[in-house]
Amino acid sequence: MDRSELTELIVNNRRRKQLSWASVAEAVGRSKEWVTAGCLGQMSFDETEAATLVELLDLPAEAAVLLTEPPYRGSLPTAVPTDPLIYRFYELVAVYGTTFKELIQEEFGDGIMSAIDFRMNIEREPDPAGDRVNISMSGKFLSYRRY
Amino acid sequence: MDRSELTELIVNNRRRKQLSWASVAEAVGRSKEWVTAGCLGQMSFDETEAATLVELLDLPAEAAVLLTEPPYRGSLPTAVPTDPLIYRFYELVAVYGTTFKELIQEEFGDGIMSAIDFRMNIEREPDPAGDRVNISMSGKFLSYRRY
Amino acid sequence: MDRSELTELIVNNRRRKQLSWASVAEAVGRSKEWVTAGCLGQMSFDETEAATLVELLDLPAEAAVLLTEPPYRGSLPTAVPTDPLIYRFYELVAVYGTTFKELIQEEFGDGIMSAIDFRMNIEREPDPAGDRVNISMSGKFLSYRRY
Amino acid sequence: MDRSELTELIVNNRRRKQLSWASVAEAVGRSKEWVTAGCLGQMSFDETEAATLVELLDLPAEAAVLLTEPPYRGSLPTAVPTDPLIYRFYELVAVYGTTFKELIQEEFGDGIMSAIDFRMNIEREPDPAGDRVNISMSGKFLSYRRY
Amino acid sequence: MDRSELTELIVNNRRRKQLSWASVAEAVGRSKEWVTAGCLGQMSFDETEAATLVELLDLPAEAAVLLTEPPYRGSLPTAVPTDPLIYRFYELVAVYGTTFKELIQEEFGDGIMSAIDFRMNIEREPDPAGDRVNISMSGKFLSYRRY
Amino acid sequence: MDRSELTELIVNNRRRKQLSWASVAEAVGRSKEWVTAGCLGQMSFDETEAATLVELLDLPAEAAVLLTEPPYRGSLPTAVPTDPLIYRFYELVAVYGTTFKELIQEEFGDGIMSAIDFRMNIEREPDPAGDRVNISMSGKFLSYRRY
Amino acid sequence: MDRSELTELIVNNRRRKQLSWASVAEAVGRSKEWVTAGCLGQMSFDETEAATLVELLDLPAEAAVLLTEPPYRGSLPTAVPTDPLIYRFYELVAVYGTTFKELIQEEFGDGIMSAIDFRMNIEREPDPAGDRVNISMSGKFLSYRRY
Amino acid sequence: MDRSELTELIVNNRRRKQLSWASVAEAVGRSKEWVTAGCLGQMSFDETEAATLVELLDLPAEAAVLLTEPPYRGSLPTAVPTDPLIYRFYELVAVYGTTFKELIQEEFGDGIMSAIDFRMNIEREPDPAGDRVNISMSGKFLSYRRY
Amino acid sequence: MDRSELTELIVNNRRRKQLSWASVAEAVGRSKEWVTAGCLGQMSFDETEAATLVELLDLPAEAAVLLTEPPYRGSLPTAVPTDPLIYRFYELVAVYGTTFKELIQEEFGDGIMSAIDFRMNIEREPDPAGDRVNISMSGKFLSYRRY
Amino acid sequence: MDRSELTELIVNNRRRKQLSWASVAEAVGRSKEWVTAGCLGQMSFDETEAATLVELLDLPAEAAVLLTEPPYRGSLPTAVPTDPLIYRFYELVAVYGTTFKELIQEEFGDGIMSAIDFRMNIEREPDPAGDRVNISMSGKFLSYRRY
Repeated sequence: MDRSELTELIVNNRRRKQLSWASVAEAVGRSKEWVTAGCLGQMSFDETEAATLVELLDLPAEAAVLLTEPPYRGSLPTAVPTDPLIYRFYELVAVYGTTFKELIQEEFGDGIMSAIDFRMNIEREPDPAGDRVNISMSGKFLSYRRY
Repeated sequence: MDRSELTELIVNNRRRKQLSWASVAEAVGRSKEWVTAGCLGQMSFDETEAATLVELLDLPAEAAVLLTEPPYRGSLPTAVPTDPLIYRFYELVAVYGTTFKELIQEEFGDGIMSAIDFRMNIEREPDPAGDRVNISMSGKFLSYRRY
Repeated sequence: MDRSELTELIVNNRRRKQLSWASVAEAVGRSKEWVTAGCLGQMSFDETEAATLVELLDLPAEAAVLLTEPPYRGSLPTAVPTDPLIYRFYELVAVYGTTFKELIQEEFGDGIMSAIDFRMNIEREPDPAGDRVNISMSGKFLSYRRY
Repeated sequence: MDRSELTELIVNNRRRKQLSWASVAEAVGRSKEWVTAGCLGQMSFDETEAATLVELLDLPAEAAVLLTEPPYRGSLPTAVPTDPLIYRFYELVAVYGTTFKELIQEEFGDGIMSAIDFRMNIEREPDPAGDRVNISMSGKFLSYRRY
Repeated sequence: MDRSELTELIVNNRRRKQLSWASVAEAVGRSKEWVTAGCLGQMSFDETEAATLVELLDLPAEAAVLLTEPPYRGSLPTAVPTDPLIYRFYELVAVYGTTFKELIQEEFGDGIMSAIDFRMNIEREPDPAGDRVNISMSGKFLSYRRY
Repeated sequence: MDRSELTELIVNNRRRKQLSWASVAEAVGRSKEWVTAGCLGQMSFDETEAATLVELLDLPAEAAVLLTEPPYRGSLPTAVPTDPLIYRFYELVAVYGTTFKELIQEEFGDGIMSAIDFRMNIEREPDPAGDRVNISMSGKFLSYRRY
Repeated sequence: MDRSELTELIVNNRRRKQLSWASVAEAVGRSKEWVTAGCLGQMSFDETEAATLVELLDLPAEAAVLLTEPPYRGSLPTAVPTDPLIYRFYELVAVYGTTFKELIQEEFGDGIMSAIDFRMNIEREPDPAGDRVNISMSGKFLSYRRY
Repeated sequence: MDRSELTELIVNNRRRKQLSWASVAEAVGRSKEWVTAGCLGQMSFDETEAATLVELLDLPAEAAVLLTEPPYRGSLPTAVPTDPLIYRFYELVAVYGTTFKELIQEEFGDGIMSAIDFRMNIEREPDPAGDRVNISMSGKFLSYRRY
Repeated sequence: MDRSELTELIVNNRRRKQLSWASVAEAVGRSKEWVTAGCLGQMSFDETEAATLVELLDLPAEAAVLLTEPPYRGSLPTAVPTDPLIYRFYELVAVYGTTFKELIQEEFGDGIMSAIDFRMNIEREPDPAGDRVNISMSGKFLSYRRY
Repeated sequence: MDRSELTELIVNNRRRKQLSWASVAEAVGRSKEWVTAGCLGQMSFDETEAATLVELLDLPAEAAVLLTEPPYRGSLPTAVPTDPLIYRFYELVAVYGTTFKELIQEEFGDGIMSAIDFRMNIEREPDPAGDRVNISMSGKFLSYRRY
């Protein structure tokens, strides 16, 4: 069993047991964003978290070790995503990429926003003109080292 | 003059006049995120906004019309961005893309977050462990129509 | 079983049972365009619709849940399609893409035609010089938000 | 002067003279869809139409011949378009491509919809829930020859 | 069984039974060019032709329906073919593509040669300096519609 | 001046002088297919032919040498052509590529059809159902050497 | 069994039987370069050669026919090879490609070196500064036909 | 002036002065293969060689330094070359790549043939069946270091 | 069994037996960098080393030969890696590539750093501001041969 | 003037003034690695450093501001580099990428080596068997945040 086979098993068992990602996250004791990413093969769990998942989702014993290893990351089958929901985020990068760059560097100087020391929150905002998806991201700023 | 030549002129004149994007935005009367994107050729302005920019940035008269036209969008020279700051956002899509999809659809059902009826805010959060870049995004949820 | 295996099963059983897409759509109670897209793994059904399909097409029980989940969309194996019928539509985008942009924006201002709040109809028009394929599309116009 | 330089000149002069595409089409005496595509370098005009355009848009004399020649078609700079409005049409092909194929072939048998013997109409449909873009396309069906 | 599995079966059984493509075509009663293309998954047969193939090549019963359906066309694994024989044809398009365009349009005006209403013949021409492959192609000319 | 600038000059002067490719070929004393390919930068001329072209098309003196040099071949801007006329030939390779391979090798054994020792003829065939483009190609068969 | 499965079988059996390519070639009675290429699925054998290979390498009976058929050529999984030994040859093409072109055409005029009527020899040259790989290639020169 | 502009100048002046590559190489005192590669921007010369080239080819003074600098190598505009002469070498890599690997490693063990400590010779071999291009390459074998 | 299946087996057995790469390397008697690369299918072992690995990792007997053969190298599924840790090294090449070139050539003249006669060491450097990854690489400099 | 034009100017003036990168770095007061990268458009300087460069390299006044701005990074014209020196580093990523990942994560857990908080040193190591290029890199380890 490799990690992508495990991801497929998690996805199937979650569907069969009718568990929401929010409830899986609650069982693990972390945010739904991070736990979902981990279950989809993008994050590594500690041993307690892995044990919880193995029990909750009826996974085989060997899954426990596999879930604690850093996975080979990258969740999409193509460089430009074809799924419309995911493509909209790629479009934001294509359209706003240079804006991200200008504004972050105007405020912080030369460097980047970390995608590693990073957290994210996705929420629903009721709105009479149509509910909105609100996403807040927070990444540590890292300055280019000069030497 | 086409829009990309105008963008280059705006970038050069802003540098020469030492104006921050925040001050350009203030003159225009909109958020710094949207105004910066527009100055970089990704959004269209109304006539008053365009006139303000022409004066503020010493642009030629013909720029006024050009700034009000919808541009051919896309701010990056390659499908996978090479600049590290911008790449980190692409990496978020690559790593978290399927997570965005699962969580938005768990909450809202089948549909997408609009990248058109969309707003964004970039801010600095002081943090003793290193300041953080905070980005909040808000997009209208659009359900797939069934027919 | 994942969604692409289910799609293959639907395609095979429909062939074996000699059902037209129009008759499948009638059983589901939606348009043939939307139902066909759904059966090919591009749309999600509600529970009643899914139950109808499971019975009509002899699908296994677990298919019922799978059909109600938003699929990872994208129906083509390559970025530029090789099948001549499908390629002709890609060719329309390549040739008429900038025309779509100019005329929609001349009429509506800056924004896009939604591909989500969208419906489509495909019909045969008899014509002595050779019958014609008529396709009508209707998508909500979405304006870029200014903020 | 080659055709792409001429296209740029047409685009600039139309902007300067503040002419809508609809009025250019009316002067030429053809539909706005076809005339716009031609002005953007995707169709060829006859001599009378070309003469009208030369006068209307202050084009140099040599443009008259150039406008009557079949252009090297293809209006987009990349295989997958980056502009969100144009991308939405590419997305329709990606999502609905196999649906187009199934339904056209269910109705007509094996063949394609012509993209050459083809006409198109783009219209605005007022709608209280937000106006809609309506596009109707009509292409001759061509059967594969058997020999 | 899908069409590509059927193609593999046809290829294997033809080899085992030591049948030439010419004899398969004769049994079907069509040209060797069209029948070979169909057997390789690029054309659809009528019911009589399909029945002939099923018997001649020991195919399972379900193949009969599959052979009458329009296949997803495209016979090559990469956009630029790697096999030298097939590459030479791609090279002809790369080298002579603009010549095809100039000469067809000089003779016919603006339009294309159909690849659907099309037939082809491949023959051997004995030549003391080395035999030659002669290919003749005939496609209906289609004019761009003006509207 | 390099070869692509010379090609552009030839194309412009031919247009200005209203010469057909057939008449250019007649002046050169070769087929219209080969002469057109050469004028478009895909073949090299001998000195007499080059001198004829220089005079006929008002080319500068240095063009004479340039026309006799083997050019860097390849006439298309993208690997998959976007122009519909040229694309149809690429589609023939995609659809019929494996058929070319099977039939040529059934007749000749293992080898290729030369694209170098090659000639081609493009003609119009009147047909009441719509005139046809007839193309005949003849290439020397080359066997793989065994050693 | 298709040709790539046969190639895998040959590779495995040769390893198991500890045969060098040179000894396989000797058994077949051809050069080691051509026989190795053929065993790796790039050349076709005659019936006697195929029979020898079937016996020598314990191949199943059906392999005999398969080895005599022209394979779909192309031995590498990516357009730019990743294996360093093979990449160095690609690098030679990238760096020396235009040199090959200039020198061959200076000597022979306009044409190509055949890769079909071609033979190759790979040898070891002892050298105190480090042994050298010597490769000699010989391909027939083919002139472009003028017509 | 950068190196690619210098290459263009060298190519043009060599043509104007009617010098063969062989005679340029003789003047420089190195092989025609290496000198041609250098003149085409792929190798660096020493100061004496550079001075010879500057005088022989009427280059401006600043060329002398530029010719002694290591260039950014890579002489082809696309990853898969379109020119048929150069493509044939790419085809050799595609078809014989794995053969190169097997035979070099059978003889030498694990390592590569250097493309840096490398020399090459291109010659014409008269042959009644058509003259042949003979290319001999010699590269130092480099073993993978084990540590 | 081919090499990639063997790699998968090694990865799984190492996990099951809870062995660190450092301890595997110690058993083999080589550096952890080289042994890990070899276990991941990028280097070839000698017979003693292979035997050690077969015993240590419970590999089948046939693995012993396979481990001594030069593998087809290249450990990543895409040309631009998606895993963030590995991407950072690609980013270094993208950002510092021209710097590597300038500084190595300023010091050594025209040539390359060998990636074959190469060794590498990865170590942890404790640092109060956050521990650091230290990588030292050493490759033999190879001069371009002049001939 | 944009940054890439400035880079070209720096490269030309450095050549004309015969300054080594080491001496430029000494004048700036930073390492040769970082200064070279900055001069090649990959790093931003502070105002004093920029002023030094303007004077040392005869740059125009406006260069001073441009040198202090974060550039759009990425120094290579293609995703896979064609220059052999730079390619060797890409090859290291292709071959050793998974080894980097395994060993860094074995030592540090799940995270990455920063390419931002990063420094590098390139040195020559004399060696009787051929001098060696020694490169040492040091990047801060960043752990994935769990939340």
